[in-house]
Amino acid sequence: MIITSSSNDRIKHARRVREGRERDLIFVEGERLTAECTSSTLELHACFYASDATDSMRELVARMKCEAFEVSEPVLESLSDTQNPQGIIVIARRPEPMLDQVFASESPLVVGLDRVQDPGNFGTLVRTAEAAGASGLLSFAGSVDAYAPKTLRSSMGSAFRLPIVTDVSGLGAIAACRAKGIRSVIATGEATMEHYDCDWRQPTLLILGNEARGASAELMKSCDARVRIPLHEPVESLNVAAAGAAILFEAVRQRKVTL
Amino acid sequence: MIITSSSNDRIKHARRVREGRERDLIFVEGERLTAECTSSTLELHACFYASDATDSMRELVARMKCEAFEVSEPVLESLSDTQNPQGIIVIARRPEPMLDQVFASESPLVVGLDRVQDPGNFGTLVRTAEAAGASGLLSFAGSVDAYAPKTLRSSMGSAFRLPIVTDVSGLGAIAACRAKGIRSVIATGEATMEHYDCDWRQPTLLILGNEARGASAELMKSCDARVRIPLHEPVESLNVAAAGAAILFEAVRQRKVTL
Repeated sequence: MIITSSSNDRIKHARRVREGRERDLIFVEGERLTAECTSSTLELHACFYASDATDSMRELVARMKCEAFEVSEPVLESLSDTQNPQGIIVIARRPEPMLDQVFASESPLVVGLDRVQDPGNFGTLVRTAEAAGASGLLSFAGSVDAYAPKTLRSSMGSAFRLPIVTDVSGLGAIAACRAKGIRSVIATGEATMEHYDCDWRQPTLLILGNEARGASAELMKSCDARVRIPLHEPVESLNVAAAGAAILFEAVRQRKVTL
Repeated sequence: MIITSSSNDRIKHARRVREGRERDLIFVEGERLTAECTSSTLELHACFYASDATDSMRELVARMKCEAFEVSEPVLESLSDTQNPQGIIVIARRPEPMLDQVFASESPLVVGLDRVQDPGNFGTLVRTAEAAGASGLLSFAGSVDAYAPKTLRSSMGSAFRLPIVTDVSGLGAIAACRAKGIRSVIATGEATMEHYDCDWRQPTLLILGNEARGASAELMKSCDARVRIPLHEPVESLNVAAAGAAILFEAVRQRKVTL
């Protein structure tokens, strides 16, 4: 059976998922990302693929433990989140890791994002955090959806593996970390300590703030330390995903030295 | 005089600039970016501002040494490169630095971009390169336009200050650097040396490649060294702007130690 009507109930439901209106489900598009999703522990809900899907896409569909529907080109276009539909879409259950999973490491390095708004920045930070060996990520209330289609595309599959707890209170996260012996360190241009001089081998929550405004004032007061990346004048700040990469790979360097 | 027709010749010309069809000129939008442009050494060609421009925008316009035109809201919308027009647009002469300006440093650290396609990545790398004290940037043929509106927005003004030479041959750049005693180092997942083990205090051209395919095979053969950023499995690569930030701020760290 080929779905040829974009007002088909399953298609309408999938569009609601895409728009973030079905909170238990996420919308995963493209061969690479659906392959990463299929290899992950996520429960798949449904798959939609183009009539002209490639052989490798059809093999991928055959491996999925969920219902799969062939759809006509106009239906795929009505579903797709991208300008050029990529032939395959999966609806999966939204990951809901427990808070403890985020800290599951001998010396946790956790990333906290405070109202990061751009899905590209958020997804890039998820990818960089996993690459740097972070044990998990906390998304504070007011950040973009960690599992929105654009965020997922930038995370390149890392969002299916790295434990991400969303809608966390920033102050609550700092308190929970303190109770576990994990310091909270905020990156801000107003700090005096350079990020090179911070000891990242210790259990740490690294907090990165909003693109324009940085981390919120109440978090600045409540954290254990603040660090700045030394910047050549007249540059005042880095893109938040670039700042995260610079700091996280300084942490990787320090942690290698110890081993 | 208020321009109220979007088919006015000056408006049509400005749209051609926005679309990259007037190679000598660049299109700069938004208060922050036009202020950066006005403070730079770039020659301004024309300014267009909204009838409801803020006082600070009007003060900015008054400081500009170029013709300025008030435009109606529909005209501004027809000009704008963004979904929400930001009230002010400047047409400026495209910077054309000489190659030598890119190397104007005691121990040059230069960034080479080989077919980087995403304007957000390119602009972020320009911003990060200036922040890390790079002396300039070489954009190899096949990369996105360094001065396209989206690239400029991501560069946050750094593109008006950092010398950027565009449409350079990658092999030519490596040869020119070699003649000046500057090593060429490519970032690639296939390298054996970690970027931490490379001596970035030496004069260096750091080459970052295309988002999906990395640097081209001929550059891989021709360069002096290759480095990889150590990544935790199963992550295979970083976003190119994140990779650039991780490496450039390792270079900053090493160069601080020397001073």
